Amino acid sequence: MIINGVTIEDTFAEAFGMKATRVIITALNETWARNAAVTMTGFATSVIGSGIEAGIEATLGIDQTPDGRPGVSVLLFGMSAKDLEKQLERRVGQCILTSPSSAVYAGMDGAKTINLGRNIRFFGDGFQISKLIGERRYWRIPVMDGEFVCEERTAYGDAVGGGNFIVLAASQEQALTACEAAVVAMRRIPNVIMPFPGGIVRSGSKVGSKYAALPASTNHQFCPTLRGITASRLLPDEMSVLEIVVNGLADTDVRAAMRAGIEAVCALGSTAGIRRVSAGNYGGKLGQFHFHLREVMA
Amino acid sequence: MIINGVTIEDTFAEAFGMKATRVIITALNETWARNAAVTMTGFATSVIGSGIEAGIEATLGIDQTPDGRPGVSVLLFGMSAKDLEKQLERRVGQCILTSPSSAVYAGMDGAKTINLGRNIRFFGDGFQISKLIGERRYWRIPVMDGEFVCEERTAYGDAVGGGNFIVLAASQEQALTACEAAVVAMRRIPNVIMPFPGGIVRSGSKVGSKYAALPASTNHQFCPTLRGITASRLLPDEMSVLEIVVNGLADTDVRAAMRAGIEAVCALGSTAGIRRVSAGNYGGKLGQFHFHLREVMA
Amino acid sequence: MIINGVTIEDTFAEAFGMKATRVIITALNETWARNAAVTMTGFATSVIGSGIEAGIEATLGIDQTPDGRPGVSVLLFGMSAKDLEKQLERRVGQCILTSPSSAVYAGMDGAKTINLGRNIRFFGDGFQISKLIGERRYWRIPVMDGEFVCEERTAYGDAVGGGNFIVLAASQEQALTACEAAVVAMRRIPNVIMPFPGGIVRSGSKVGSKYAALPASTNHQFCPTLRGITASRLLPDEMSVLEIVVNGLADTDVRAAMRAGIEAVCALGSTAGIRRVSAGNYGGKLGQFHFHLREVMA
Amino acid sequence: MIINGVTIEDTFAEAFGMKATRVIITALNETWARNAAVTMTGFATSVIGSGIEAGIEATLGIDQTPDGRPGVSVLLFGMSAKDLEKQLERRVGQCILTSPSSAVYAGMDGAKTINLGRNIRFFGDGFQISKLIGERRYWRIPVMDGEFVCEERTAYGDAVGGGNFIVLAASQEQALTACEAAVVAMRRIPNVIMPFPGGIVRSGSKVGSKYAALPASTNHQFCPTLRGITASRLLPDEMSVLEIVVNGLADTDVRAAMRAGIEAVCALGSTAGIRRVSAGNYGGKLGQFHFHLREVMA
Repeated sequence: MIINGVTIEDTFAEAFGMKATRVIITALNETWARNAAVTMTGFATSVIGSGIEAGIEATLGIDQTPDGRPGVSVLLFGMSAKDLEKQLERRVGQCILTSPSSAVYAGMDGAKTINLGRNIRFFGDGFQISKLIGERRYWRIPVMDGEFVCEERTAYGDAVGGGNFIVLAASQEQALTACEAAVVAMRRIPNVIMPFPGGIVRSGSKVGSKYAALPASTNHQFCPTLRGITASRLLPDEMSVLEIVVNGLADTDVRAAMRAGIEAVCALGSTAGIRRVSAGNYGGKLGQFHFHLREVMA
Repeated sequence: MIINGVTIEDTFAEAFGMKATRVIITALNETWARNAAVTMTGFATSVIGSGIEAGIEATLGIDQTPDGRPGVSVLLFGMSAKDLEKQLERRVGQCILTSPSSAVYAGMDGAKTINLGRNIRFFGDGFQISKLIGERRYWRIPVMDGEFVCEERTAYGDAVGGGNFIVLAASQEQALTACEAAVVAMRRIPNVIMPFPGGIVRSGSKVGSKYAALPASTNHQFCPTLRGITASRLLPDEMSVLEIVVNGLADTDVRAAMRAGIEAVCALGSTAGIRRVSAGNYGGKLGQFHFHLREVMA
Repeated sequence: MIINGVTIEDTFAEAFGMKATRVIITALNETWARNAAVTMTGFATSVIGSGIEAGIEATLGIDQTPDGRPGVSVLLFGMSAKDLEKQLERRVGQCILTSPSSAVYAGMDGAKTINLGRNIRFFGDGFQISKLIGERRYWRIPVMDGEFVCEERTAYGDAVGGGNFIVLAASQEQALTACEAAVVAMRRIPNVIMPFPGGIVRSGSKVGSKYAALPASTNHQFCPTLRGITASRLLPDEMSVLEIVVNGLADTDVRAAMRAGIEAVCALGSTAGIRRVSAGNYGGKLGQFHFHLREVMA
Repeated sequence: MIINGVTIEDTFAEAFGMKATRVIITALNETWARNAAVTMTGFATSVIGSGIEAGIEATLGIDQTPDGRPGVSVLLFGMSAKDLEKQLERRVGQCILTSPSSAVYAGMDGAKTINLGRNIRFFGDGFQISKLIGERRYWRIPVMDGEFVCEERTAYGDAVGGGNFIVLAASQEQALTACEAAVVAMRRIPNVIMPFPGGIVRSGSKVGSKYAALPASTNHQFCPTLRGITASRLLPDEMSVLEIVVNGLADTDVRAAMRAGIEAVCALGSTAGIRRVSAGNYGGKLGQFHFHLREVMA
């Protein structure tokens, strides 16, 4: 399959089952909702090293938040509900409770829930006030600029982590320009995040290493500087490679985001130095979700 | 002392000895140096909950970086060199190694050093190359978009954490406007960071809690909603309170930043609803650094 | 009518018939589409002094632009089709033709059209190439970074300029915070722009002046510093006033934007220092469109 | 001369004598100073089509502005003092007077002056108040959010417009990446602006046209798509070209900015697809300033 001169390789992205939740952060204005969210979702690029994968999903208007203030929705992904809860509570305490004028609410409904503000309420030193609206409990915690309002619990659910595609280009600048366009397009899709810095990752890895203690190492077959000394998977005019990893609440969300991103890359096309779109997998044995690029783009 | 109608309270900020390092992140352009730095310094508001306190110190021109590319300098503060090293290595691996076109260098000279890229080099799976320039060792690690260059070690030194001042205003909007102006002014001072979201914190705390297990709780004497039911330290027209916490490489840096910030707050003055500037301390018994506001502003 | 403690005054905004067009600017990425659009819509706050009123309407994804690249849509309003055409051609030539990687297309369909790239094509010095797709003609003009593609003409239509509302608050900071939230909400409404800097205007005017030559002057009845020496329309606790002006393609668009903005202001409410929402009119004699606040908010 | 693999052509930029002034815009915070400045300096890319060339020079801290508030300095260039004054007054009236919380001051001292707020004061309808501090007169004009403070006059002086250099690269993305880095570096140099959108121009022109009425047209010798059909000045691997135009208060300022920009381009070097740096001139007959690239980079 070739789109606008770009080869779509006949391969697939291999993704994994995760648990995910959404929280909604509001504040006096959009700037401060975003300040809190950026801080909270920092250092959250992969579960193995950061404990969680998190990112901003969308900016919310005043008609889309529980308290009628400007807001931001954040998605967080962990390997288990327990991991998710631990990281969520800590990050809310460090980054939302502390942030001027903020409040935080559940962004997902469902039977299975984890703590959101349940333990943070004790920061109120007994002055916190509970409020029950329907079946949802909220806490009002006195702080210096007024009150911090947080919902007691939030639902979580099954999710998909590690959807991806790989962009091979004639130069680093062209690979980066194409991936920037892809991230802009993918941010318009609901229910997904791209957890790496600016949405893009350049250090693709393979399973295993010559150092026995290390579970993963650089994917040498895609490293342009190793072309001459290893079995390379790069063609002669593929000089720089970048990857976009996408997590979503459902496989259909990941698929929609992958399609939007690859379309944006291909819109630039071969005249912009884009050679090929590929994807990362482990032979299909590790992850339960397989996203075949040619089906995604069909 | 009264400046432009704002009372500077006769009190002091109490700060603590910490260990700190600086690293310099460069990339193809300023946007990507900043993307890496924002991700790396996220979730880093206090050592107790985040393991580290970190922030962006400054944007660097091409004449201010080791490789002549646009860059950003980041300061990181921990309770010990060991803590600092552990967090630094993990955050570089998660947030800088992964970020398109990035490189990372020591931003401080000195005899005492910690690992920067020393262990990250093994990601190169044996293909990494060492380069010694003078007494500094660098690693070139093959990645998909080219090479990740990182220095092996960086110096660290004694530092000061927890400098602060508190702004009391007639409304939340006015407190926030004043603190925003303060943060802009303080970011122009070298060798400091303001680790909280957007540089400001609204959940000031006291030592202890009615819940025995908790080491700290809301500073109820500064909470406007508790004015009627506790012994408040707020005057009648002080309706909202915010704090700025500042960490610096030396006490003189913290002092300079506090002064710049308080000047910006007072420049807005009482006509902008600013009533008082105070500071947080523990009676002087816990922290070795005392910044008396009236000396800072003398 | 009182919403969340804020009085909605029983008055109306008086707006005028104008002519408007939309153009779509695309580029290699969103940043550069926006750079071109920001430059093109600068110095365009009122037809009287700037010759045109213009602003960015929305950011467009790759599925929303004619060439499948990231883009921005811009609305321009003039007093006549001739004025509109003159300003449009000049601004495209100065700000879009010149901007790296840009292209510009008609953003509106209809029988009545004005020149877009029709004269700019001559910049190509005879090397320009015409392309007819259906009934739309495009020009490809050779430039240093490749080609500038522009559509020959764009449709225009009747439109509405000067919708507005006025926010009266207890302080300047609170008025500004509320209007910032309103602008964020209004930018989510299609078919409208807020032409003043950052979307807000603080120099409300009245018709006439004590200086015979001047057609307009400061609306002294709303100036807080003149409260003691003129017949003021400000209540005792209304210390600062800001206005939002909104232009739209239809009266229903202006109405929707006014409603979204006033809702955002009222969401902050009287506890955030917001006292009253009013509107500007000329007794109903000059403008053909009257937006009664209480109907807008019904 | 070759720097990091990039050929510095043996040619010169030809620049012109202009008149310039600087004004300082302040506001409640940096965001609003910048909003006003961005609006005021929009549609100001070349004197011929826009009437003026203008841009933001720098962000100013509270210790760098006359009223101790955050600010921005703006440079404006015209062909004569009269042109400069006319555009300055109109743009201040449209874009600064109207912008929330703003004030505007002279940013240059000297014997020769033009009007800044002198006529805008009449907007005050007789309620404006004059204040003389030393030899400088200020006006306080009542507006809805308080008062607009503006200085009566500002100095102006001789200046240099049209300094430039041209970047030739292997692709559009690489040319743009290099010029973005150059603009970041050049913005750190005082006394200069880059008047085109985002600081970069892609529609380089030559004097004359096949259409007799037109004074200028596309510089076909630098257009990559015309390579086969005209006498091209492009080498085989030069596929995209961008230019940076820089205006400065003195020739030494233009020189310093050109050097900083070219250094940033060369720092990326030939491995980033940068082939050559050239400059635009008219054979040396039109402009009084000649900046020889090899002297600039010596």
